[in-house]
Amino acid sequence: MYHLWHKLSAEILGTALLLTTVIGSGIMAEKLAGGNVAIALLANTAATVGGLYILIEVFGPISGAHFNPVVSGIMAVQKDLPGVEFIPYAAAQLVGAILGAWLAHAMFDAAILQLSTKMRGGPGQWIAEGVATAGLVLVILRAPSGRVAAMVATYIGAAYWFTASTSFANPAAAFGRMFSDTFAGIAPASVPNFILAEFAGGAVGLALHKLLEFRPMRHDHPNVIESSGVTQAP
Amino acid sequence: MYHLWHKLSAEILGTALLLTTVIGSGIMAEKLAGGNVAIALLANTAATVGGLYILIEVFGPISGAHFNPVVSGIMAVQKDLPGVEFIPYAAAQLVGAILGAWLAHAMFDAAILQLSTKMRGGPGQWIAEGVATAGLVLVILRAPSGRVAAMVATYIGAAYWFTASTSFANPAAAFGRMFSDTFAGIAPASVPNFILAEFAGGAVGLALHKLLEFRPMRHDHPNVIESSGVTQAP
Amino acid sequence: MYHLWHKLSAEILGTALLLTTVIGSGIMAEKLAGGNVAIALLANTAATVGGLYILIEVFGPISGAHFNPVVSGIMAVQKDLPGVEFIPYAAAQLVGAILGAWLAHAMFDAAILQLSTKMRGGPGQWIAEGVATAGLVLVILRAPSGRVAAMVATYIGAAYWFTASTSFANPAAAFGRMFSDTFAGIAPASVPNFILAEFAGGAVGLALHKLLEFRPMRHDHPNVIESSGVTQAP
Amino acid sequence: MYHLWHKLSAEILGTALLLTTVIGSGIMAEKLAGGNVAIALLANTAATVGGLYILIEVFGPISGAHFNPVVSGIMAVQKDLPGVEFIPYAAAQLVGAILGAWLAHAMFDAAILQLSTKMRGGPGQWIAEGVATAGLVLVILRAPSGRVAAMVATYIGAAYWFTASTSFANPAAAFGRMFSDTFAGIAPASVPNFILAEFAGGAVGLALHKLLEFRPMRHDHPNVIESSGVTQAP
Repeated sequence: MYHLWHKLSAEILGTALLLTTVIGSGIMAEKLAGGNVAIALLANTAATVGGLYILIEVFGPISGAHFNPVVSGIMAVQKDLPGVEFIPYAAAQLVGAILGAWLAHAMFDAAILQLSTKMRGGPGQWIAEGVATAGLVLVILRAPSGRVAAMVATYIGAAYWFTASTSFANPAAAFGRMFSDTFAGIAPASVPNFILAEFAGGAVGLALHKLLEFRPMRHDHPNVIESSGVTQAP
Repeated sequence: MYHLWHKLSAEILGTALLLTTVIGSGIMAEKLAGGNVAIALLANTAATVGGLYILIEVFGPISGAHFNPVVSGIMAVQKDLPGVEFIPYAAAQLVGAILGAWLAHAMFDAAILQLSTKMRGGPGQWIAEGVATAGLVLVILRAPSGRVAAMVATYIGAAYWFTASTSFANPAAAFGRMFSDTFAGIAPASVPNFILAEFAGGAVGLALHKLLEFRPMRHDHPNVIESSGVTQAP
Repeated sequence: MYHLWHKLSAEILGTALLLTTVIGSGIMAEKLAGGNVAIALLANTAATVGGLYILIEVFGPISGAHFNPVVSGIMAVQKDLPGVEFIPYAAAQLVGAILGAWLAHAMFDAAILQLSTKMRGGPGQWIAEGVATAGLVLVILRAPSGRVAAMVATYIGAAYWFTASTSFANPAAAFGRMFSDTFAGIAPASVPNFILAEFAGGAVGLALHKLLEFRPMRHDHPNVIESSGVTQAP
Repeated sequence: MYHLWHKLSAEILGTALLLTTVIGSGIMAEKLAGGNVAIALLANTAATVGGLYILIEVFGPISGAHFNPVVSGIMAVQKDLPGVEFIPYAAAQLVGAILGAWLAHAMFDAAILQLSTKMRGGPGQWIAEGVATAGLVLVILRAPSGRVAAMVATYIGAAYWFTASTSFANPAAAFGRMFSDTFAGIAPASVPNFILAEFAGGAVGLALHKLLEFRPMRHDHPNVIESSGVTQAP
């Protein structure tokens, strides 16, 4: 039985290590790739997939391993997270994100305090963030429980490449990456639109999930009794 | 219990996202790879494998996650899909494929409406499409049920490289990729032969499956009664 | 219940497709890699790992999915393959290997009949083949049964890189690759020493397995009765 | 039931093959990568992840597959390894490490006896080794038992990229890599600080694990009896 402070510790630690993984591997990859951005992004992708998988497996049993305010929001809407825990979760994620960026900088002997100058935006990027986050929410809501860690990590790895924005899909990640003027960074001015697109995408993901589970009322056969899971033909 | 419209929604959405993954990651990969096509195809492969795995896991419980008219055809022959649902499935897949191409274009700020100019063909390519599709059908028919998503995705990833055609293995994919003048595109004039080769390959895959399960009639011991699954020695 | 001819069909088909995967992906990789051999070998590795995993899963239930005379020999020694089936298995594997090379050539519009001119040899290479095959046998003999396909494929992928010979580890593969003057080829003059090293390595692998399971006779406590799997302390 | 000498054989053999994998794939990767260090490290990472996964699966049932004195130390602290076996385990790991380096050199026709000249150090590198080892210990202590091999291997693969030191995270590995003047080597003068950082990181990992499982004493309700795993509300 975990208390709220266990859960928030897990969210801080997990989000921090997620950002350390994303930013650290981005620094390493760019440093070694000799200017070939595809090679750098391949390495960044592989490290993110592996790290995210591990973090969800390790912290999932404690806090659910959201590491992401959109995910916590969806869980609150779905009653899988008590509503009063949403704000503490989101705050823990933002704190973790910035600490993770700083840890990456410390490891790579870089200035701890940085602000990204990498502008990211435009309609394509915003659509991409929406698509990326909608897909993430759909995966989380529909994955068989024993496979959620592997599926979320695999999904994010694919989305690094098939979306135009390299799939942040996470307001806490966008927030933390703002504090790193490196491969994975995003300029502060670009962050608000990314976060809006992510919440909008999350809502679309939830709507698609509900559509796929939608059962119409059957006004034409008012006295048919439907047994569990099996539609009775009249 | 899912209705036909649930299944068709899943086929449209899944095929769309499959094409978005294939085409989108192709655009991203070519843009970043600095002219090294092997690096671009590696990234395109990794994104396709991850995306396809996720899509089959997510939509499989609803529609079977065919996303492919050859697969739906084989399922209909095997009585795993009601025959009357074949045409709606194939139509949903074609609609999804074109929508997926357009979504990729929207994310990458490209013209929505495109036609590929990339000619693909010749005996080697057609043999390759036949081999790729025969292998796909064999994998689908023989995979243990809990592993079909991982096995299909892994198979397609390998076939991107071991076939000369980069393994479309899917008439809906060929149709959708016709509408994208990007890395993953295929010129309309090249599509009919690809589709023919894919259906022929699918038939070969089904024949190989039946060969591997073939049990000869035993005319020499006409009154031996065979118990389930175990051959009785005379 | 499968008959011998089912098993031999599976060994021919599986070994053929394994060689098609190895040789075909080698051709594709070298063609696209722009002279960077590491990139070519990465792609060749990924395709081999994926293809081998699928082939073992698909054909394992029929024939055991050996595709390799050293493996069939070890299985015969371990009584997991009837001794009289060893020669037919090995013959099927050699036939499959050459057919697989030819199928790869047909797909890539190359001459069907080729002989490799790539010399491979020297003490390092032979040690490497021995190490590679010893490791393969150890993995096969010790893998939990549900994981053998994934473990064998993963092992071979690692051994492509950590051995100096890129880990053929399979006399049938060496035989088939002799008939392809491409990335994965091996000159006929280099094959006999490779095959000797592979069988020697297989014997080492079996010996290591037996060492790890060795239970000394306990002459000092002659009347202790040992219960199944649990050593009784005197 | 395995005797100590079985366990030590497994630790020697497993650590040797781990070092052979790391050093051998480093040599191969650097030789083929044409000067692109990111490509070399990608190949080195892939081989290490695959090899480590296999080695843990193969030797885990015998010795626990530590291959790492920090891990053996943590297991001794946690009473999962008898305290008297710690020194023999660590000695076996160091012996295995040096043998593994030599086997890699033999395969690549290089001088068997080498000493690395690659200096690695500075505050960032030491922090990185601490982070890498803390993470490793956390993964080992918290992984579900059936997934520990896959999770440890995946973690190390990610840590090759997100830490500045390419994540040795293992005093035996640091020791063995000292004897190889190749891609994966580390100069002897750099080793002591790496090992200190690794043990410190291991202690941090253990502390984080205990924090996440910490249950406060409840002095305010001294006579509440707590049932197993479930906190009783007053």
